[in-house]
Amino acid sequence: MSTAEETAGGEAQAWGEVTPDAARRLLIAAVEAFAERGYHATTTRDIAGRAGMSPAALYIHYKTKEELLHRISRIGHEKALEILRTAARREGTARERLAGAVSSFVRWHAGGRTTARVVQYELDSLGPDARAEILALRRQCDAEVRGIIEDGVAAGEFDVLDVKGTTLAVLSLCIDVARWFNVDGPWTPDEVGALYADLVLRMVGDGEAPRGQR
Amino acid sequence: MSTAEETAGGEAQAWGEVTPDAARRLLIAAVEAFAERGYHATTTRDIAGRAGMSPAALYIHYKTKEELLHRISRIGHEKALEILRTAARREGTARERLAGAVSSFVRWHAGGRTTARVVQYELDSLGPDARAEILALRRQCDAEVRGIIEDGVAAGEFDVLDVKGTTLAVLSLCIDVARWFNVDGPWTPDEVGALYADLVLRMVGDGEAPRGQR
Repeated sequence: MSTAEETAGGEAQAWGEVTPDAARRLLIAAVEAFAERGYHATTTRDIAGRAGMSPAALYIHYKTKEELLHRISRIGHEKALEILRTAARREGTARERLAGAVSSFVRWHAGGRTTARVVQYELDSLGPDARAEILALRRQCDAEVRGIIEDGVAAGEFDVLDVKGTTLAVLSLCIDVARWFNVDGPWTPDEVGALYADLVLRMVGDGEAPRGQR
Repeated sequence: MSTAEETAGGEAQAWGEVTPDAARRLLIAAVEAFAERGYHATTTRDIAGRAGMSPAALYIHYKTKEELLHRISRIGHEKALEILRTAARREGTARERLAGAVSSFVRWHAGGRTTARVVQYELDSLGPDARAEILALRRQCDAEVRGIIEDGVAAGEFDVLDVKGTTLAVLSLCIDVARWFNVDGPWTPDEVGALYADLVLRMVGDGEAPRGQR
């Protein structure tokens, strides 16, 4: 994760909601440091240094390293929920809404993979209260996807083996894009998003899911 | 990852190939420490202490911390390849072989999730030579799954949108089980393996994939 492309500041997640500028720079520095060395191996001194600031300047904005991780995780999960909620609540058939949710969720994980890895892999580094808050956001993400699948079953569009298990598999498939996606690889985020939308329509037994070549 | 269940020694991965006993104990201690704190935050002193040994005793078996990670990663990937190769080369239709590959690969990731997380998330912590060796093993894993899918297409069993992309998605879905699987959750490893085998048969457009309820 030390290649030039792995810089959280240049990723899809713009952190525009974090102000003032110094607080945002520190947050981006923390994402990069956590992704590169792991949460436990990173000190607040490392983070401040990466942001070109003193440790004292860091403490003006964040009391602890955990506060930084918590803030990163909350912003990341709120964005994930916003993406899924927007897709779930738009007009259209369940098929269109599920395809839209999957392709936008995949694009976000491919484009913001440094942040997504920190958010996904350092969940156990949060304290109990912060962790409970994040888990509540994750349950809401799950509910948005499950809702689309249930609508599709009710409308006769989908033919699902196990709604809860299929919802989990759909989210898992999208999240793992952050682990393997490589900007130097053969696919763009849009291409992965389109392929995955088609694969997910097959998983939910959509009668009109795209066919391939035999 | 600090709950009692997250102990690499009690997992499906038995490390029986690592001898003598002291070398195996150190390896298991390293898996647990890396999973709990991350590779960079773990010292050889931590690992020796966890194994109830002195740092000097560790150096008899492993020259560096990276040698431990490399050994863990190689054993993990060799086991993954063995699982997929066994499933790919057994007798039976492509459908049967793919379902077997997915269910056994999922069971292994659920049962050995502490090890799997270390192996998957610390890949970038390996040096260039070790990393190249592991990436070669990963390409072989990929080729086994791709081979089953190609056989199914050739036999007219499967109807695949994109063989390379579908292969990657199938492996990704199985690997991510290590991230979310929880022994206290609603599913056993066998149940996840069975559900995922059915979902993957749908992804490859198997004409006889199980149907659900509309």
